[in-house]
Amino acid sequence: MAVQVRQAQSSLSGFPEWLPAARIVEEHFIDTLRRTFELHGFCGIETRAVEPLSELTRKGETSKEVYLLSRLQADPGEETTDPARQLGLHFDLTVPFARYVLDNAGTLHFPFKRYQIQKVWRGERPQEGRFREFIQADIDVVGDGALPLYHDVEMPLVMHEALSALPIPAVTIHVSNRKVAQGFYQALGIREEQLPEVLRVVDKLDKIGAGRVATELVDVVGVTPAQAEAALRLAEISGADPEQVRADVLAALSGAAPTELLLQGLDELSELLRSAGRRRPGAIVADLKIARGLDYYTGTVYESFMAGHEDLGSVCSGGRYDSLASDGKRTFPGVGISIGLSRLLARVIGSGMLEVTRAVPTAVLVAVTDEAHRGASDSIADALRSRGIAADVSPTAAKYGKQIRFADRRGIPYVWFPGADGEPDSVKDIRSGEQVRSDAATWIPSDEADLAPRLHPAGEAGIQAGERD
Amino acid sequence: MAVQVRQAQSSLSGFPEWLPAARIVEEHFIDTLRRTFELHGFCGIETRAVEPLSELTRKGETSKEVYLLSRLQADPGEETTDPARQLGLHFDLTVPFARYVLDNAGTLHFPFKRYQIQKVWRGERPQEGRFREFIQADIDVVGDGALPLYHDVEMPLVMHEALSALPIPAVTIHVSNRKVAQGFYQALGIREEQLPEVLRVVDKLDKIGAGRVATELVDVVGVTPAQAEAALRLAEISGADPEQVRADVLAALSGAAPTELLLQGLDELSELLRSAGRRRPGAIVADLKIARGLDYYTGTVYESFMAGHEDLGSVCSGGRYDSLASDGKRTFPGVGISIGLSRLLARVIGSGMLEVTRAVPTAVLVAVTDEAHRGASDSIADALRSRGIAADVSPTAAKYGKQIRFADRRGIPYVWFPGADGEPDSVKDIRSGEQVRSDAATWIPSDEADLAPRLHPAGEAGIQAGERD
Repeated sequence: MAVQVRQAQSSLSGFPEWLPAARIVEEHFIDTLRRTFELHGFCGIETRAVEPLSELTRKGETSKEVYLLSRLQADPGEETTDPARQLGLHFDLTVPFARYVLDNAGTLHFPFKRYQIQKVWRGERPQEGRFREFIQADIDVVGDGALPLYHDVEMPLVMHEALSALPIPAVTIHVSNRKVAQGFYQALGIREEQLPEVLRVVDKLDKIGAGRVATELVDVVGVTPAQAEAALRLAEISGADPEQVRADVLAALSGAAPTELLLQGLDELSELLRSAGRRRPGAIVADLKIARGLDYYTGTVYESFMAGHEDLGSVCSGGRYDSLASDGKRTFPGVGISIGLSRLLARVIGSGMLEVTRAVPTAVLVAVTDEAHRGASDSIADALRSRGIAADVSPTAAKYGKQIRFADRRGIPYVWFPGADGEPDSVKDIRSGEQVRSDAATWIPSDEADLAPRLHPAGEAGIQAGERD
Repeated sequence: MAVQVRQAQSSLSGFPEWLPAARIVEEHFIDTLRRTFELHGFCGIETRAVEPLSELTRKGETSKEVYLLSRLQADPGEETTDPARQLGLHFDLTVPFARYVLDNAGTLHFPFKRYQIQKVWRGERPQEGRFREFIQADIDVVGDGALPLYHDVEMPLVMHEALSALPIPAVTIHVSNRKVAQGFYQALGIREEQLPEVLRVVDKLDKIGAGRVATELVDVVGVTPAQAEAALRLAEISGADPEQVRADVLAALSGAAPTELLLQGLDELSELLRSAGRRRPGAIVADLKIARGLDYYTGTVYESFMAGHEDLGSVCSGGRYDSLASDGKRTFPGVGISIGLSRLLARVIGSGMLEVTRAVPTAVLVAVTDEAHRGASDSIADALRSRGIAADVSPTAAKYGKQIRFADRRGIPYVWFPGADGEPDSVKDIRSGEQVRSDAATWIPSDEADLAPRLHPAGEAGIQAGERD
């Protein structure tokens, strides 16, 4: 038996909803992430959905697509344009986490490792087809004053372990380092103020190709053709071997002397690759064309790609902030990584790559002989539940064939028949048709995996997609 | 060891946040509710946080405290006062569920049992100190055309089972029935249009007392003194014995002839009490003074009170709608019940009645001998995690006493010491001080309950509140 996993009808574009089978997939994903994060000692927290606008735009990002709130029953004169009093929905989980750390800095123990799996909202134009509500799953560690580099290794390894526990194609985490890029461009003689523009253009490499990037770097940003060429050489460097990456970057300088910052960045990047290669080979590669995020992260930067779904873009991203939060006296550096869970799920569900064995938690449907004996069926169901077996009672006392069809349509694997007149009960596996005597005080399914709905790749192990409507 | 459970600093009133220990309590509550709901065959769904204003005010409840959304980057002329295009945050989970049922009526299988545990928002005046963001946990069953009365029994029994699995004082579910109240007042000769006012005044019984209710009924609503007296007699009736309740209600009529509606309501109420008494004695009592909700529910109505915390008001509430949703052709009756989870948690946490054994998921802190050997500690932690034991590696290679204090401050029960120079590893239970040889490939804690944080009533079993800061 298999239930196809589909998206629900959504009457508002950008606000995805799932039918029950797809929600089972979503809950499985969330539970798996949470389990992995907790195995690594991350605390779960939730922050309120709402922040003052001043908090949301603290990093000067007034271009963010924020939803502002106002009260339907607002009192006259209540409207405000003071961003400290105006409330908006959070657009990510980093800004609220930084605020939470400051609010509770006197109570939290540092280094503080937390995970946070919550909805976020972006006030996008309705016509753009982008998600306006979606779930993010973030892990971050924040230190008080200092935060050693080994946390830069820990974050992507934990996230890779979590993603590897999901029924999705392999994900590889690509890393770069702001210090490498900035130090490299310094060494080439590119001016500090040109850096953001250089990064913005290099970021388009996959979209517009090397030729047009070079042209734009020279014509629009105003670097020399030699500088543009070196920038492209840097962007071509990738690999998991720390020494090779270091050698390639230094070679890309074409004789220019490396700066202190570049050497420091290369040390960090090499150490990350070395550690990660030892602990989780194949999880992490250097990828020096990463440019997005380099304008706000201060060291390591992460992006990630799912095999065969590179067109989806980065599945999870993050990096290090030397000052994730600061109250003027104390500074809290942080490093973290964030999955766009709804986007990943929409791809997984939309591509039909997964099925679930059923769309309800129910393992057993207890049949009802006639309405006068519904109480007997209730007692059987309660006995099964008390031993952890999800059970439901048939809503109708119709002919057994109809009650079996009720179970079949939902993917419920077992139907229980109460014994009449002192006869023993029996239970039927409606997939095989096998029916055996049973006692609600002791019965368990022959395959314990039947206790809960299971996910599997579509069409696998003799299961036919579309077998069920 | 015990960690006190406290609320986080909240810089916005009405938007509660929890410190990690309290979040463990919240997650335990949510997981327990979810587990019980699934044992009873309820599907988990989530709906988007946002609905068109026209949907939110469909029942004519324009007095609802709704938060409206607007885009910070709105285009000129984008503002709208068309309630079908204006978006707001949902204020409960019933309105979105009804909309979801209609959106997916062609795909869902009926009767459809769902649970939904989500945040909701109320745009209350900031100064009123009420929750503006909170979690609700709802169960509902919705039928296509018809929905038998036994679901009116099922809902409160499932919710009572879920609440009984939580570490809180006993909850009793109080029930009434709109048909009993309406039929009773009809029999007394109270006019249809007086009914809402009568209910509104009777609802104040606990606050203002019988004398003032009687006065207000006569002076403000305009019923006769005899009618007011009968209304108060009805409101005094409570109990779990179906025959006694029926007899008391008929006696309260003082000779007036019962109407059809009253008799039908009494049949429903009696059947509910009978069934519930058989399946879960003590869970449910009739309580004829319930007046709230009778203006929108069409049959059974629920309220619930926690022993010793009656001042908190109803912990969970709900009832039956003969038309939860309708598309004009099909009508979907529903019955359900909803917990205000954040309100319950705020009481449980605020009253200090609970403690958790630790504020982190970590069971074992692996010590670090020196930074050069951090890799060895990482390997030990990975070996423990691969067997389901949550482990963290010490952030510092300081003296072991300092590393033990790091564990102690977080409530982590075990510290693992890697063996140097071929010596075996050892693990110390820092509560007892006992230290034994150990192997990361086989070790498990002597008490498996140590694998995850546990909740217990404050001060119980030799555990001192405030032992830990």
